[in-house]
Amino acid sequence: MTFIDQAQAAKRAAVALATLNRAAKDVALNAMADALAGAEGDVLKANQRDVERARRAGTSDALIDRLRLNPQRVDGMVGGLRDLARLADPVGDVVRGWTNANGVQVRQVRVPFGVVGIIYEARPNVTADAAGICVKSGNAALLRGSSSALESNRAVVTALRAGLETAGLPADAVQLVEGGREVTHELMAARGLVDVLIPRGGAGLINAVVEGSKVPVIETGTGNCHLFVDASADQEMALEILLNAKAQRPSVCNAVETLLVHAAIAEEFLPKALSALAAADVTVHGTEAVQEYSGQVVPAGPGEFDAEYLSLDIAADVVDSLGSAIEHVRAHTTGHSETIVTNDRASADRFVAEVDAAAVLVNASSRFIDGGEFGFGAEIGISTQKLHARGPMGLAEMTSSKYIVNGDGQIRR
Amino acid sequence: MTFIDQAQAAKRAAVALATLNRAAKDVALNAMADALAGAEGDVLKANQRDVERARRAGTSDALIDRLRLNPQRVDGMVGGLRDLARLADPVGDVVRGWTNANGVQVRQVRVPFGVVGIIYEARPNVTADAAGICVKSGNAALLRGSSSALESNRAVVTALRAGLETAGLPADAVQLVEGGREVTHELMAARGLVDVLIPRGGAGLINAVVEGSKVPVIETGTGNCHLFVDASADQEMALEILLNAKAQRPSVCNAVETLLVHAAIAEEFLPKALSALAAADVTVHGTEAVQEYSGQVVPAGPGEFDAEYLSLDIAADVVDSLGSAIEHVRAHTTGHSETIVTNDRASADRFVAEVDAAAVLVNASSRFIDGGEFGFGAEIGISTQKLHARGPMGLAEMTSSKYIVNGDGQIRR
Repeated sequence: MTFIDQAQAAKRAAVALATLNRAAKDVALNAMADALAGAEGDVLKANQRDVERARRAGTSDALIDRLRLNPQRVDGMVGGLRDLARLADPVGDVVRGWTNANGVQVRQVRVPFGVVGIIYEARPNVTADAAGICVKSGNAALLRGSSSALESNRAVVTALRAGLETAGLPADAVQLVEGGREVTHELMAARGLVDVLIPRGGAGLINAVVEGSKVPVIETGTGNCHLFVDASADQEMALEILLNAKAQRPSVCNAVETLLVHAAIAEEFLPKALSALAAADVTVHGTEAVQEYSGQVVPAGPGEFDAEYLSLDIAADVVDSLGSAIEHVRAHTTGHSETIVTNDRASADRFVAEVDAAAVLVNASSRFIDGGEFGFGAEIGISTQKLHARGPMGLAEMTSSKYIVNGDGQIRR
Repeated sequence: MTFIDQAQAAKRAAVALATLNRAAKDVALNAMADALAGAEGDVLKANQRDVERARRAGTSDALIDRLRLNPQRVDGMVGGLRDLARLADPVGDVVRGWTNANGVQVRQVRVPFGVVGIIYEARPNVTADAAGICVKSGNAALLRGSSSALESNRAVVTALRAGLETAGLPADAVQLVEGGREVTHELMAARGLVDVLIPRGGAGLINAVVEGSKVPVIETGTGNCHLFVDASADQEMALEILLNAKAQRPSVCNAVETLLVHAAIAEEFLPKALSALAAADVTVHGTEAVQEYSGQVVPAGPGEFDAEYLSLDIAADVVDSLGSAIEHVRAHTTGHSETIVTNDRASADRFVAEVDAAAVLVNASSRFIDGGEFGFGAEIGISTQKLHARGPMGLAEMTSSKYIVNGDGQIRR
């Protein structure tokens, strides 16, 4: 089947999905979960082949770890599908509505996008998560996974499609898009067949999709997140938030990557912060103003303040004012999540108003900027763009809307 | 000034605009209106030069009519700016909010996009409308008007900028982008400097921007709108809606371009419809099934059912069922506004559910799909895309959002 055949089949499946009620979709999600659980052996064997191929190709241990499935990870995928069945369905929600003076009734109602393309990197669990989120929100999914996970993805998709068929839904609601790089280009050019493209992965992948796509894109989450400790901060609170935001799970996009400290408290706060970070195995890449408080600080190289480490590393600088902190953030932010720790109302208000990001936090850890923490139940990613959705994207963000207008013969005068 | 200089100046102005309250923006809008009213003579003289140049270049009368300003049209622009000052400000509206179990408070608040680029064709009144909508919604505007209206646009922008300065706002909140085609390409490539691009004009312009832009685009309004008269329709109602939707203002995107009639009533309805359309000077381009009811029907050529006439022309066909009507719409729709006239609940429900468009109407004229009719007060265009905004775009659709998170030291466990 060519890519265009696949996209057309997806479009036909999307028409069927769009008018399903929640109950029908939940039955399908549970059937997909059952089928995936039943195929655990096949999935693990296929994954073993992917892992061996990656090892022969000299892939790093970190990447192999992301690629590898085990029974717990397959159970996680199965459980994720069952969780989706328990979530409310956004489709059909009335966003707003009114009645005109002439009696014309207008409602704006959530509807699925149609066909959603997802381009993602090594982790095969994304295959089941993304397929489930698309089905629950009434969208057909075209899944463009990494070639390194091809056999795993095939086994997962085969199971999911069997589940859809068991439930009486079109299997083409979930399809894996295979082939070389030219197929990615076909996917990005498929305006009119594919309604939305969502890249999930590193900055390189996301930039390539945003710049190359003719299909509308939702840009998700590179996070160069900043934590600014203001002069008036509760320093114990600042330390706790810093350690949590940096070290609780350093590999995720809502982890803090840069620490900025107000000069007025640097002498008191930085020695405590630097020793706490060192105790948590965090390497600090600091300017000279930071280096003077600890011999363990590595000099910050050029471009250090634009790094998204995703590791136990943090860049650090001292700033002479709130305004300088905002300027620094403005110059380096990726628009994900930015935090101020302060006890001053005016500082908090100014930071919140002037920092342009999906989320701005006062006295809380940026690790809260997450679909699960927001209570969305499922998350397709964290949007760092300004159109359509900004911040964690749940099921509602996977829909468009339609105006439904009811009259009894009204015409415009 | 190069385009990049302009875009950077716009970005700086946008930072200032983003934190203004409504009162400050309304003072500026009234000052812009005063300045434009005071510059009426200059604007009309500049427009006269544009019109003379267009005439020498052999431009059609229709295009010259769109280009031409007169005192009434300038008054309309001035009044539009004053009207904007009376509308509510969407910036700062809380879209939703909640408090987590741990006490963390989350609010999603509307914020401006930042810098909005607008690429548009001949009508110089768009210059003032778009600038005003951007200022009211807290966005800086980069206006890329047509070269045919260059002198008019310059005169209008000069007045608007003077008004901004009178009100103490940065003049660079409103800028005209001049230069050859390469500047349009720079505008479309300015990801990171320009937040959103909105093309306003014909299908050619819109497609070129959608396909060529690296900046996120909001696609506006080509409308190949359909009217389906179902077997159960109140035929008098159908006639009234047909004439209103086609002929009340044929040059706009919410006018009907295709009439589909259920075969069961064709013999009764079509003769009435064809003679009423003829009486309204509408030329019907029909299939053989339509031609048999009147000698005045012009045979429908190939591609006729994809035409957006924007004139006193309509394509027409007879369909054998509701399903065929939906199939026809699905094959030819531009996703703008689609209408069914019916007295059957099931037919209405199926048409509404299965037709994929920004607006679906039952027993009402598609002329109601309009920002003014929706009570939005101002309209930047009608979005026919599925991301961000779909349908008439008012001031709220000219904003993004930001999550503001307040805690007292919460960290993630």
